[in-house]
Formats: sequence, C-alpha cells, structure tokens
Amino acid sequence: MSLAEQQKAEIEQARAAQAQTRRPTVPAMEELLFTALPVLDHGFVRVIDYMGDDAAVVQAARVSYGRGTRKVSEDEGLIRYLMRHHHSTPFEMCEIKYHVKLPIFIARQWIRHRTANVNEISARYSILDREFYIPAPENLAAQSEINRQGRGDVLTGDDAAAVLDLLRADAAQTYEHYEQMLNPEGPGLARELARMNLTLNTYTQWYWKTDLHNLLHFLRLRADAHAQYEIRVYAQAMLETVKAWVPMTYRAFLDYSAGAVSLSAPMLAVVRRMLAGEQVEQTQSGLSKREWIELMLALQPAQAAVET
Amino acid sequence: MSLAEQQKAEIEQARAAQAQTRRPTVPAMEELLFTALPVLDHGFVRVIDYMGDDAAVVQAARVSYGRGTRKVSEDEGLIRYLMRHHHSTPFEMCEIKYHVKLPIFIARQWIRHRTANVNEISARYSILDREFYIPAPENLAAQSEINRQGRGDVLTGDDAAAVLDLLRADAAQTYEHYEQMLNPEGPGLARELARMNLTLNTYTQWYWKTDLHNLLHFLRLRADAHAQYEIRVYAQAMLETVKAWVPMTYRAFLDYSAGAVSLSAPMLAVVRRMLAGEQVEQTQSGLSKREWIELMLALQPAQAAVET
Amino acid sequence: MSLAEQQKAEIEQARAAQAQTRRPTVPAMEELLFTALPVLDHGFVRVIDYMGDDAAVVQAARVSYGRGTRKVSEDEGLIRYLMRHHHSTPFEMCEIKYHVKLPIFIARQWIRHRTANVNEISARYSILDREFYIPAPENLAAQSEINRQGRGDVLTGDDAAAVLDLLRADAAQTYEHYEQMLNPEGPGLARELARMNLTLNTYTQWYWKTDLHNLLHFLRLRADAHAQYEIRVYAQAMLETVKAWVPMTYRAFLDYSAGAVSLSAPMLAVVRRMLAGEQVEQTQSGLSKREWIELMLALQPAQAAVET
Amino acid sequence: MSLAEQQKAEIEQARAAQAQTRRPTVPAMEELLFTALPVLDHGFVRVIDYMGDDAAVVQAARVSYGRGTRKVSEDEGLIRYLMRHHHSTPFEMCEIKYHVKLPIFIARQWIRHRTANVNEISARYSILDREFYIPAPENLAAQSEINRQGRGDVLTGDDAAAVLDLLRADAAQTYEHYEQMLNPEGPGLARELARMNLTLNTYTQWYWKTDLHNLLHFLRLRADAHAQYEIRVYAQAMLETVKAWVPMTYRAFLDYSAGAVSLSAPMLAVVRRMLAGEQVEQTQSGLSKREWIELMLALQPAQAAVET
Repeated sequence: MSLAEQQKAEIEQARAAQAQTRRPTVPAMEELLFTALPVLDHGFVRVIDYMGDDAAVVQAARVSYGRGTRKVSEDEGLIRYLMRHHHSTPFEMCEIKYHVKLPIFIARQWIRHRTANVNEISARYSILDREFYIPAPENLAAQSEINRQGRGDVLTGDDAAAVLDLLRADAAQTYEHYEQMLNPEGPGLARELARMNLTLNTYTQWYWKTDLHNLLHFLRLRADAHAQYEIRVYAQAMLETVKAWVPMTYRAFLDYSAGAVSLSAPMLAVVRRMLAGEQVEQTQSGLSKREWIELMLALQPAQAAVET
Repeated sequence: MSLAEQQKAEIEQARAAQAQTRRPTVPAMEELLFTALPVLDHGFVRVIDYMGDDAAVVQAARVSYGRGTRKVSEDEGLIRYLMRHHHSTPFEMCEIKYHVKLPIFIARQWIRHRTANVNEISARYSILDREFYIPAPENLAAQSEINRQGRGDVLTGDDAAAVLDLLRADAAQTYEHYEQMLNPEGPGLARELARMNLTLNTYTQWYWKTDLHNLLHFLRLRADAHAQYEIRVYAQAMLETVKAWVPMTYRAFLDYSAGAVSLSAPMLAVVRRMLAGEQVEQTQSGLSKREWIELMLALQPAQAAVET
Repeated sequence: MSLAEQQKAEIEQARAAQAQTRRPTVPAMEELLFTALPVLDHGFVRVIDYMGDDAAVVQAARVSYGRGTRKVSEDEGLIRYLMRHHHSTPFEMCEIKYHVKLPIFIARQWIRHRTANVNEISARYSILDREFYIPAPENLAAQSEINRQGRGDVLTGDDAAAVLDLLRADAAQTYEHYEQMLNPEGPGLARELARMNLTLNTYTQWYWKTDLHNLLHFLRLRADAHAQYEIRVYAQAMLETVKAWVPMTYRAFLDYSAGAVSLSAPMLAVVRRMLAGEQVEQTQSGLSKREWIELMLALQPAQAAVET
Repeated sequence: MSLAEQQKAEIEQARAAQAQTRRPTVPAMEELLFTALPVLDHGFVRVIDYMGDDAAVVQAARVSYGRGTRKVSEDEGLIRYLMRHHHSTPFEMCEIKYHVKLPIFIARQWIRHRTANVNEISARYSILDREFYIPAPENLAAQSEINRQGRGDVLTGDDAAAVLDLLRADAAQTYEHYEQMLNPEGPGLARELARMNLTLNTYTQWYWKTDLHNLLHFLRLRADAHAQYEIRVYAQAMLETVKAWVPMTYRAFLDYSAGAVSLSAPMLAVVRRMLAGEQVEQTQSGLSKREWIELMLALQPAQAAVET
C-alpha cells in the first residue's frame, strides 16, 4: 500500500476530530475508523462510517422504544436465534461504509453484489494513478487441472519469472501509452476513451456502503476458501472490522453461517444410514461422485469453511 | 400521541447517554435524536440513528481520502449540481433510521417503497395495542367527484358525526372481540388468526431505515399535495428531520426536485410558442385537456409542489 | 373461490387466443395459463405469463448463442450443480407473473418479499368487494403454549363456534358500515378514508411478478411447515406451477434447498462425534436445548422440510 | 460484428423453431427475436426473450381479469397518463432479456444499473476471445476543454493515427501475452490470474434481463446526448427493440420522459417572468450561469433530449 503524504495527513486529520453523540458508539470501531488496512500490494480497506451495533439488532428484533437490551446472555441468545433461523431483517438495521482500493478485475467480481451503494472514481473524469496489482510469487498459481475455475500448484523458476515480467512490462507500457494519448501537448485524447488502453490489474477505488446482513452474505461467499485469493484477502480484512464492530453477531456468523454446511435431502439420507450403523459406499449412496466428496469433506474433523 | 410513562423513561434514558465519536456528527440531529414527533392522533416519527451529513455526499462524489470538503460555497454548488442532474449515488452514502407508529392502511401504502429496511412489530407474536386512527373532523372529506382518487369537501353536521360514530364503534368492537378470542380463559385463539378481526385503522409500528436518496424520493411523492393526507403528515415531519440533518441537500431538494416541474415535449412546444408571443389555446395546443390544466398550473405564480 | 360469470368468460376468452411464437414455450404451463387455482375460501392463484424454461437457466449459465442445451442428463446435472452451490443468477433469467386474490393480513406478510413487482387493486380508487376470509373449522387453532408465533390444538365446540360467529359478524358489520359511509346519498366519505373501517381478513388482489430465483426463495420460506397455514396454501399452489414450468429446477429445489438442512458448526461437531461411535447427550453436546432438538429432528428418518 | 459460422447456425436454428402459445405475443418482436443488431466494431445486442406487451401494462394498471384493454385510444391514454405521472409499477410487468457483446470498459458503466439480472461470461472459467474495440476514426475525440467528462473535437492526421496504432498494438500484445501465460505447455497460469493482463477494450458478453420500467430508465440516461458515445449506440439499438415491442409505451416515453425537461423552482420563476412580458437577463435571474444555459437550451426550438 502506498498512501501519499497528503493522504496520510488527511486521514490523521479525520481521526483527530472528535465530537459528542447520542448514537450507539462502538469503541473498538472508533479505534479502527479511517485507518487503512493494507491488502495486496497497493490496495486497502478502511472503515469510513458505521451505524448501529449488536444492540441495534436486538432493538429492531424487539421493535422497542429504548435499546431493547436485557441481559447480555439474552441478547446474544436472540442474535444467535436470528442468525440460525435466517431472520435477516434485524441485521439490515446496521450499516457500514468502506473506502476500498482494489484492482479492476476484482472490482468487476465485487460489483456483482448489487445491494450495496457504490461511488467509484470515474476514469471519464479523472486520470487513474499508475498502480497495478502484480501477484507475489507465492500467489502465482497454475490453472487447476481438475477445477476449471480453480488454481493448482504455485509456479516456480522460469515460469514464474516469465509471467511476472510480462505482467509488469505490459502494465507499464499500456499505462505509458495511456499518458501519451492523454497528453494535451500530443493527441489529447478524451479520458473516457484513453482509459480503454489500461490493463485489468490497474487499481481503482470506491466508497462501498452496505447493511450488515448483505455484508455477511458477501463475506460468506468471498471469505470462503473457494473464492479467488485476490478478493478473499479483502473479505478477510473486512471480517476483522466486523469482529470489532458487532462481536456477538460475528460469533453467531462463524457458527451458523460461514461455518455451517447445508446437507441436501440425499446427503441427509446417507448420514441417517451411517448413524444407524450402516457402512455406506458412494455407489449405493444415491449421491454423485462430486456430492459424495462434498459430504465426506463436511464430515471430516478439520472442516473449516471460512479461513479466519 | 400517547407514550406510556415507561416509554418516555426509555427515551429519556437513551437521550441522556453520550459518547465520543470520530464519525461525522450533526448537532441539530443530535438535538432531535430519539424524540417522538407527534403525527395524527396516536402516531409519531422519531429518528433513531443517522450516518453521514452534507459533507459525506461531497466526499463520495469526490472519492476523497478526507472529508472532501473545500469552501462551503463550492460544496453547496456541487450538491446542487448533483441534485439537478440526478446523480443520485452520492446521496445514497447517507443513511437514516426512524421509529414510526402509524395506522395499518397507511403502512400498506408506505411499504410499497421497496428499497428501505423494515422491522415491523409482529401480530403473530405480539398482541397489538388498543389504538386506532380516528380522523379529526376537519380531515373527514367526501369523495371527490372529479378525481377518483381524491378528496372533495369536508363533511359537516350529521354526516360527519355519523361517520365518526361508525369508525369509533367498529374499531372498539372489533378490538374487544380480538381480545375476547385471544383470551386464554376463553377460546385462546392463535394470535396469527385473531389479528384478522382488527380494522385497518389500528396502529402498528416499525423501524424503517433508508438512504438519503431513497428517502428524498419517498418525500417527493408523499409530501406532495396529491398524496393522501394521512401519509403526507408523516412525510412533512420527516422533511423537518432532513432540514436539520443535511441543510444543503434539503435546499437543493426543494429547488430541484420537490419544487421542480417536468415539462413534456408537447408542453415545451407550447411554452416556446407562448414565449414567441403567440396566444395559445388548449384546442390548438396539441395537449389533452388534462395536460393543459397541468401546464397552466405549473406556469401559475403561486405553484408549490411540496407543502412545507 | 367465487369468480363471477363475467370473470370466467374473460378467462375462457384469454385461454382461447393462441399465437405462434419463437420464444421458449412449456406445454404444461400453457395448459395452466390463466386458470384460477383455488386457495382458501375465496382466494386463488393464477399464472398470467411466464418467460423462460429449464433450458433458459442452462443457456444463461453457459452464456451461449443458442439454447445452450446438450444432453438432457448434462442439463439436469448443471441445474443441480447450480442449485447445490447457490449460483443463483442463472435462475434469475426466468420470470413468472401471477394474479393472486388473498386476505389483507396475508398480503401484509407476502409484501415483505421486496424483490417482486406488484400491482395491487387500490382501495383509494376502487370499492373493495364484500369478501372476507373465514377459516374452515379444522384451521381454527389455539395459540401454541410453547411457541409464541405458532398454533396449538384445533378449537372445538363452543369455542370454535364463538370465534366463527365473531369473525363473520364483525366482517359483515364493518363492511356494511363501509358501504354506508361511502354512500353518495349519505355521507359520501372519500374511499381512501372509508377503507380504514375494513377488517384485515377482507380480500384484496394483485399482480405479482418475480424471477425464478426469488420465487424459490419465497417458496422455501412460505411452503415450509413453520409458515402460517394461510400463506402456506398459496405457496403450495405456486409450487405446483413451478413443477409444471421447470421440472428439472423443481427437483433440484426439493433436494438441495427446500429439503436441505443447514448444520451449524457446533451441530456438525456433534454429528462427527456420533459417527465416530460416541454416545452424545445434549448436556455434553455444546448445543442449547433448542438447537439439540433441531438437530435431532434433522437426523430423524421422516424429516421433510416442505409439505408438498 | 463477427459471428462465427457455428453461432450463426445456432441463431438460425433458434429462429426456425416455433410453437403455439397463449401468452401475449408481439409479431414485430417475433420478427426481431434472436437476430444480432450490430453495435460498434464487434459488438451486438439481440433480444432473447420478452414477456408482456402494451396491453399487459394496461392490465396491471387495472388489475383486471382479462386483458384489460378497452378501446385502443383509451389504452394509449392510460399509458400516457401513467408515464406522465411516474406511475411506474405497471411498466414493471413487462420483461425483456438481451444477449449483449460489449467492451469491458462499457460493461463497467452499464453494470452500475443494479436492478437488472446479469449472467456474464466468466474469465475465471473461460478464455476470452481475441476481440478488442478500436474506435472508428470519426469517434476518436479529444478531451473537452470545458467539460471534464466530455469529448471535444475529433482527432485528425498524425494524432489520430498515433492513437489508433497504440490501441491496436497494445491490445494485440497484451492478448498475445495472455495466451502465452495460459499456455499449458508454458507457464499454464490460472485463468483467473491471466485475465488481469487484458486491456479494458477487450470484448465480453452477457445476458441482461430487466423490466420495462428499469429499461426505460436506463435508456433515458444512456440514449441521452450526454452519455458516452460507446454506450449510447447500444442504448439506441435497444430503443429500436422497444419501439417494436411496446409502441404505445415508446411514444409516451419520447413525449414524457426522454423528451421532457425538468424545470427547477428557480427556472420556473424565470419562465413565469418571461411569460409576463419581462425581459430577463441571467444576472437578475437568480440562476447560475450554468443553469441559465440549461434553461435557454430547453426553451430553444430544436431541443431533442434523446437522439433517435
């Protein structure tokens, strides 16, 4: 991550200003506020604002006049009940706003979550900075041979070096030509056109605001081991902010959502036979090979759906 | 409005608690926070939480690291530009949460705005209070004879008295039977069934949370003179909270949205002919009678689209 | 259900008209089209239009130029894969439109699903028909003593008779007064006001249009045994239309969504211990009593999440 | 546009298949169905499916049992009334599905319309085709000097040639390296990583489905003269499909939405003064310079908000 001195000064200035408020306030979030959590080589996530806390979830579920809280153990019990039974509307009563810097090809994945509010820097209007994502060598993976969407072994030696050289050189060259085309002393091409010459690893940035329910849905998918590494690291950084913000909700999320496994009707039938003492093989299970493997993984001791 | 003593105490307790925050804070909103603004005979609107301020709109539009603000006049100019050109996403960066008590038939109109988050008290789970909306005599209007959706003259004398008697007596009786059916010593009917005996003027309540853009859209439609009186008074109370919260946005909204008029292509053609000095009559205007009246109203001096 | 003769004639006329189309067409749906499936005492659901079929799901998942279909078995495998892994966007490519007649208190539950398009008959504009939902005796249940949202035993004898008498009499009386207040020879009260005197079991109707993904989400919640009976019967009727429309998707839905059970991380830990041969009791399970019961129900042979 | 022979064959096959249906059918849309309308150098828009027609809008507005149509003139009057008064829900009852091929930088603008359903070809899973957008010389515009988002004069001579050379060479080179990195005989880099080397003018494709109301909102913004040329040409092609599909709605849209102008409260005040015979200058108008120019443009004879 590379914040210019001026940007750091602006962040420090924002952190220095304090005011009195009657709104629910979370000290651990106040501590995090505005600070950039580094992600990838030049990216970051920072919390810009938040609304509500664990008690606001409870208050909405009880539609009460005050904070709605009773004993801490009752509040946590209610939050766990809501999470377990997919009663999502009380979690929609909390809201969070992030400032995120991320490569364009990751922004394209991220934007598919349609329920958030987004303000992205406009390359019709502004000139993008000269910053590209170049993977660290340990993240330079080969195409998986068994999973068309997945990664296989890490590249090594000449292969890794060749790939990094190509990525670096092409990003540098296309950016140089971008500047050249924009040059008012030269062609002076319109920004909205010149941007098309940039590569998809160029960094962009946006304000992204969402409610807690939709944030957890995003994190369940994107902090999952099957998500692409480059978006997973953003999700993991955001998971830390959730832990600071709404610790009860965070624990319920780990137990009942991120750490839960959905067993299909045919899978359940197999589990029941196994619990009745039957030795079940895939071929007589009624499950496809793929589903059988998924079930066996779910029943393995070490299973952990979210890497935290 | 009739808050029980316990409710008033809860509100006072919530107002008494203060904390330090680094988040954008609006003193005029802090002053309003948690207080119930009375609406109709037993209803209210109260602000429970808010996120962001005018500067947050500016910050999002500029995707900046700090508050994004420059000179006050530049900020207001930007907000007015955004409002005038329907650039709505920066306004989505502010969020507000209300607690509202309202009659069910108004709740049914209100809920059609689908972009908000809602937690309503559940009559499957709770027993609703014995509170119904009975119009004040000056709001007891006859069916309009020219507008199938509208109101005509105010009822008077025996007609008014007869209507009020019927409304009061039926609400009281159906509520009494509701309690009777629920009575555990009697039938002990399930709450989810007993509620069907209540009339549509029974009060319900909910938490309602939305972003500033969608709130303004709601207010443009519901604070308008064509909206039903019983929802308009809620919208007017909420408009006051907007004025306290984001005064620049509020002024831009009055000028460019609530106070603006959309002229169709055929209407514009008429205005151009009039400006060129032509005397235009409806019959040669190319407008239907209805459109002609709408245009004449728009061009009248006293035109005010929102009653504030 | 009670369709007037004129309504039946209009439906027959709509069914008689046929045209040639290049669009995906499902003969079993054509057979159902426009016909009212009766629900409750006066309600119905009828399919008014549909877009897409199982092959459209496949086509979207493959972003292909033609129908995207390969062998039937491959298509079904892909649909099952998409359903199992919550890849919901291909299911959003199918759309359905219903005309529904339903009691207002059920409409209030239903409308909480915000992703659909709705056009409801307006009681500001029209006079509602004299039709109320009165439960059949076998659906007249007592309040559950263990579940605050649920139903217990069926009422019998005098209790049942008393409840039915009250419901019938109050609905009849409030409707009579509604007409009386509206009477142009009498008070001539505005429709938008008079409606507030109606009880919540009055029937309303609407056009309701949604995509297949959101429809299945609705059906998973509302065809479930925990849903209120009066909405569940609508969901069950709609489930039949899904079976006719997209049979592959329907089967995958039963196996992987409606019939699936989500096991939390603590529940999975218990299942693993049991499969390892341990005798686990609730007290050493790490589960609350409630969660333990939920797990035991899931592992029981007869478990069926959707009543079909 | 460059459809492979196989793609053309698939389209022809889809067009050849016909079936009987009871659904509303629009002959002019049937004629268009599946055919690719060329846009830019390699892009296209084609209608894949549609639901509803002008009469479906009328039917929803009347929540009627049959088609809801009366006389054609009454139906058109109702549609015009709905459009003029922003009663948008009846237009949501029609749905359309497109297959679109477009450059990635345009896809990034387009996706900001969040209400549609989208299935895009996945570059994690598939290898993108070697096709890039290269502007035609007449669309190679300089950066506007007065509007930071806009285009100025067309580039000529050496400037144009230099830009085209850079765009062509960089796209070709980055694509070549993309293939090289993917090469299983070489590094065999994972697809989800290799894609980051592509430039933003690479073509992608998606299925895009939306309702008529949201489609018209998209077209009002994107067929407008202020929209970037490269997205406007898609909007213009889609406008032709709307004209074929729902001709009454199309005419109402041109008059009351695309061709309408919103006059702010201060602008209206100026128009009223002018109609009263006053000579108004910008300096005494209460309008900023920018707003004054906008008003003068609106009142000019030749004003046309959508280029059709």
